[in-house]
Amino acid sequence: MTTATATDSEFDQAIALEPDPGAPGRHLGELGAGWQIGGGVNGGLLLAVAANALRQELPEHPDPLSISGYYLAPSTPGPVSVRTETVRRGRSLATATASLYQDDAQGAPMEKLRVLASYGELAALTGEVRTSAAPPELPPVQECVGMEHAPPALIEQAALLERFDLRLDPATVGWALGQPANVGRIQGWFKLADGREPDPLALLLVADALPPVTFDLGMPGWAPTIELTVHLRAVPAAGWLRVSHATRNLAGGYFEEDCEIWDSAGRLVAQSRQLARAPRAQG
Amino acid sequence: MTTATATDSEFDQAIALEPDPGAPGRHLGELGAGWQIGGGVNGGLLLAVAANALRQELPEHPDPLSISGYYLAPSTPGPVSVRTETVRRGRSLATATASLYQDDAQGAPMEKLRVLASYGELAALTGEVRTSAAPPELPPVQECVGMEHAPPALIEQAALLERFDLRLDPATVGWALGQPANVGRIQGWFKLADGREPDPLALLLVADALPPVTFDLGMPGWAPTIELTVHLRAVPAAGWLRVSHATRNLAGGYFEEDCEIWDSAGRLVAQSRQLARAPRAQG
Repeated sequence: MTTATATDSEFDQAIALEPDPGAPGRHLGELGAGWQIGGGVNGGLLLAVAANALRQELPEHPDPLSISGYYLAPSTPGPVSVRTETVRRGRSLATATASLYQDDAQGAPMEKLRVLASYGELAALTGEVRTSAAPPELPPVQECVGMEHAPPALIEQAALLERFDLRLDPATVGWALGQPANVGRIQGWFKLADGREPDPLALLLVADALPPVTFDLGMPGWAPTIELTVHLRAVPAAGWLRVSHATRNLAGGYFEEDCEIWDSAGRLVAQSRQLARAPRAQG
Repeated sequence: MTTATATDSEFDQAIALEPDPGAPGRHLGELGAGWQIGGGVNGGLLLAVAANALRQELPEHPDPLSISGYYLAPSTPGPVSVRTETVRRGRSLATATASLYQDDAQGAPMEKLRVLASYGELAALTGEVRTSAAPPELPPVQECVGMEHAPPALIEQAALLERFDLRLDPATVGWALGQPANVGRIQGWFKLADGREPDPLALLLVADALPPVTFDLGMPGWAPTIELTVHLRAVPAAGWLRVSHATRNLAGGYFEEDCEIWDSAGRLVAQSRQLARAPRAQG
């Protein structure tokens, strides 16, 4: 198997942006059809696109330590523009905003995502590691369930899944057979399908990559993200990532989804939480 | 005991804002000295001030369902202004930003806090409650530890604590006696000292009200918030709140702090997470 590098990989092509020569702070890109899920382009990918623009806005601070995205309307494949603006530049951290736009049917720009983030340099962080969280206990990769076993109705709506080598813990895929565990947890192993190794921006994608945990609560269907905040805590080591998504508070038509991403060296490299709208009850 | 109402309470006075007649979208207030902690004004209070401005910006959507604050520099007692701007108005949700400013020593406005939030109406949320999280197990209020037992060095730096009736679980206050549990958890009962009952904006204050969980890891000292996101999930019932703060990932000089707020009716009314800078090691 050939392994995609950080320049020719599907992910890097998907988040690539060119500066708009006519408008400082404006970046132009293209959302690929291969990143769709349900009714729109995956929210983690959109966050990574905005984060890539912010990286150009803040060249002295390469990594988002904390990044919050507020999702305003579904995005679709096609041209996208991102406007960035610095809020404050400090020594170890810089804060900036990004607005992701697509043209509406009348050709008027419509904001789809607003982002606020503080950037620093993960590789420069020193200090002890006193992580008390434990990584999810997963069966070996070869005993987990690849997406080739997913229900066809899911795959049809999720071109996104073809970008991933996702191997879910069998204990958290009962929903695919009509037998959800009713726990509110989905976890598994993650790699990009083309072998591109994880880095900080790719972790933003991973934070929203798994099927919504509401599947495990017997609620199939689309769960639009309202808000997603990711804390990046370390540069991930190469290799498989362990990813868990869990909810503990589905109520009033919304739920929180907590994600942890652990790298192959056993480090908790990212923590995220999103607020999402619960799928409508069916039947 | 007389009970403060939502108009004459310390909290409502602290977050009160007047529109600037000369500048639409600009709101003027005053940060009280009584809300200081460590080197600045408490971050939860600042978030509530910004949230109050956003409530005026978005009159059709009274409550922040999700609100993210990025802290840029410490705030001090004295005049404050908040600029608000609508990002998008939808039917059930509206998104807006707020910037909180104070003048620097030269009289130039300096941004202290940038906020991004989506507002809706908590009382209008329907749908079942399937919360699987459990409230913190606390001894009865009268068996918990009031702040009158806190170390004088803590109280001196924390006028804020006089605004609260905070009763901490004895199992999580060993740090006050030099015997931290090294678990990374602090929890207890919370009320505003003047009896003002909780409401959504007050929950923003509560999300950052307890001593930093790093105390319980044997790390005394100031833990500045980088980012704080709060999800408000229900209108809180009157009475004591149960509040837990916990961290599971102190590493590289930063830690996350998760907060849950449960109301007297047993509902998980708010969940928050912040990224904070770990206190410098002492000695």
